[in-house]
Amino acid sequence: MSLLFLFSCCPPEVVTFPQNVEQVSEIAILCNDNEIPLIPFGSGTGLEGGINAVKGGVCVDLTHMNEILSVNPEDFDCTVQSGVTRMQLNNYLRDTGLWFPIDPGADASLCGMCSTSASGTNAVRYGTMRENVLNLEVVLADGRVINTAGKGRRTKKTSAGYNLTNLFVGSEGTLGIITKASLKLFGIPEATVSAVCHFPDVQGAVDTTVQVLQCGIPIARIEFLDEVSIDAVNKYSKMDMKVAPSLFLEFTGTPSSLDEQAALVADLCSMNNGSDFKWAKDPEERSHLWKARHDILYACMALKPGSKPYSTDVCVPVSKLPEIIKRSKEEITKAGVCDSFMLGHVGDGNFHTLFLADPNNPEEVQIVKDVSNKIAEMSLEMNGTCTGEHGIGQGKRELLVQEIGETGIQVMKQIKQTLDPKGIMNPAKVFY
Amino acid sequence: MSLLFLFSCCPPEVVTFPQNVEQVSEIAILCNDNEIPLIPFGSGTGLEGGINAVKGGVCVDLTHMNEILSVNPEDFDCTVQSGVTRMQLNNYLRDTGLWFPIDPGADASLCGMCSTSASGTNAVRYGTMRENVLNLEVVLADGRVINTAGKGRRTKKTSAGYNLTNLFVGSEGTLGIITKASLKLFGIPEATVSAVCHFPDVQGAVDTTVQVLQCGIPIARIEFLDEVSIDAVNKYSKMDMKVAPSLFLEFTGTPSSLDEQAALVADLCSMNNGSDFKWAKDPEERSHLWKARHDILYACMALKPGSKPYSTDVCVPVSKLPEIIKRSKEEITKAGVCDSFMLGHVGDGNFHTLFLADPNNPEEVQIVKDVSNKIAEMSLEMNGTCTGEHGIGQGKRELLVQEIGETGIQVMKQIKQTLDPKGIMNPAKVFY
Repeated sequence: MSLLFLFSCCPPEVVTFPQNVEQVSEIAILCNDNEIPLIPFGSGTGLEGGINAVKGGVCVDLTHMNEILSVNPEDFDCTVQSGVTRMQLNNYLRDTGLWFPIDPGADASLCGMCSTSASGTNAVRYGTMRENVLNLEVVLADGRVINTAGKGRRTKKTSAGYNLTNLFVGSEGTLGIITKASLKLFGIPEATVSAVCHFPDVQGAVDTTVQVLQCGIPIARIEFLDEVSIDAVNKYSKMDMKVAPSLFLEFTGTPSSLDEQAALVADLCSMNNGSDFKWAKDPEERSHLWKARHDILYACMALKPGSKPYSTDVCVPVSKLPEIIKRSKEEITKAGVCDSFMLGHVGDGNFHTLFLADPNNPEEVQIVKDVSNKIAEMSLEMNGTCTGEHGIGQGKRELLVQEIGETGIQVMKQIKQTLDPKGIMNPAKVFY
Repeated sequence: MSLLFLFSCCPPEVVTFPQNVEQVSEIAILCNDNEIPLIPFGSGTGLEGGINAVKGGVCVDLTHMNEILSVNPEDFDCTVQSGVTRMQLNNYLRDTGLWFPIDPGADASLCGMCSTSASGTNAVRYGTMRENVLNLEVVLADGRVINTAGKGRRTKKTSAGYNLTNLFVGSEGTLGIITKASLKLFGIPEATVSAVCHFPDVQGAVDTTVQVLQCGIPIARIEFLDEVSIDAVNKYSKMDMKVAPSLFLEFTGTPSSLDEQAALVADLCSMNNGSDFKWAKDPEERSHLWKARHDILYACMALKPGSKPYSTDVCVPVSKLPEIIKRSKEEITKAGVCDSFMLGHVGDGNFHTLFLADPNNPEEVQIVKDVSNKIAEMSLEMNGTCTGEHGIGQGKRELLVQEIGETGIQVMKQIKQTLDPKGIMNPAKVFY
């Protein structure tokens, strides 16, 4: 399924299914020698057209390289091949008491998540891919294979040379193909409890979020959904939540610390006129709640069959959240967009506006493009970024220039040029 | 004071004291045009010879640029100029309820800490500089000025383009001069308690550390000191701790979660034959304890007047700690080194062996060099790094090649070459 109505789909000329890093390297050498574009493919769940073969070329489908190579429970780390998805890893870890918490909506491949610097609902507690990758094996454009932190290294910290690991995290396949990743793991918390709270208006929900953070409460998840999102979730996931701007919350820790946290947050919610605070303590109930949250894209799409979604991904300093959400809603109303849903990882200052549009209606598509851009530009005005977790891909290349500035972009392009002088690695992504 | 008996001191030909980024840029242009080396200077507290003007040139002393430019308490961030030190920032923050937790032993400049990817006793809880820098202003070799995340941006997460911020963090002045940093801040925890526990042998202390981590206890600090370190601390800081391998611990959180954590850790200590578990609940007592820990370099040096120290900085996966500490002690004994102290941030797998030697005794110096190298090589054998937080500087360039591998080093050098084609930025550091 392509989720990308803003970009026309561009299939590659050839799809390869390498079985190991040596084959990936051979493919790179062949393509580099012949100046043929190389497009890495993990799970195809990216939201910014990252896998489109805009200039033709060879897709390197990494799904056959899907082995979990090692798990070191005593060191809280693991190493996986590029095709391993986050759910596959967490299923595998089920009996170890460990998990990998980074959770974009889709069941993305972990190395794809490295490529886009993904995050999700747990980032407020555990950080993003940037903070959780220890080492990467990468095939460069010319076929050289590197281990960004040195072969087999998996220390929690290092000051040894340039941080190549975090240069490749977020590079969206434009610098090399990630074939292996060593990742941090975490112990599953002793106790967990979730909650939902509804508010008369957006302001109350967002103010609560900002106050929770400012009080230093170590919340595990704090997700905002507006009333239309709640309605979509109710219908799709057969729930009966109050149709109002809402927060989905999660607390983890020892049983007593959890009671303390939860009591504080419940107080803050009611101070902001939150109501119908409802606990989900039972594991099944919790898992239903969060599955519903993760399924939201499908829930929204089900409301308008035949439409395709597009999502903004702005992220601002948390104190700017109330203002940007308010102004975004105003812009959406002004533009006359009918189908929009607002939700997000408000604990990080990151939220999405999900639009549904008929891809065959150019006027509708244009309106969505314009409003999305407007929201991104507001974020840039407020010291924010145009993308908190989806990446630049095809869609935000112009915004990236506005965000980073010409000189910063020059530096990025110098790095690209020196590592991929023929420009074969995922061309027309990140930069023009 | 130079701490670097392993490197001969190389003063620069000129020292400049720029007052602003424009002047830093002008200096860079002049030096680049004339192929003159540029050596950034923050506080001179680095431990690997980073400020030595090995090839002569111009020292850019950034101590006059020491303004705290902004603090955004509601967003938990601040922006500082390059000369601001960590203690200066924390004094400034005193009334805000916030702090910046990264604490190398010395009162280093924050941008210098960015350069070496520093950490300290709080890294086990808050991470290193890598995880805590939001944005950097950097003057490149040719005088161009960039903001690594775009001017004024300070979001908690971003997927916008290459992670230039973390390319410059840890680059030790070899890619550019950091003139401004935006940093994450944290709320001062509601309650804090410290403790000291002594063990009959190293194994007991290290096993306790590994078990604390494996139990998922969110410890704030866990520092190891061997018996000779404790003896030095007792003498220098006028304390009367039991002279035995010891752990310094700190717990933070809400009062009740703190009791839970502390009780668990006390149990683990006694299971590993720890004794004389002593609490420090009073803020003054705690502060005395941690000041004593931070002063350890001076405490050790005071034991052998006229000597100079050198410190190893290996970091391994925590499960390998007992083995590497045991084997390091054996190597030290075998080499016949008299004055060595072992201590470190064992919660991260990072520890230091501090040697004191007479810089005028070439034989003594050689023995220390050899043993330090041996310890680093053991770390590399155990999936570790030769430097957890001090950086490569002059001293570990050969080890870096062993650690990263020839191809990885090639890639680092390509990046260096494209951003600093004339090789003027802090030459003869990180690479040969």
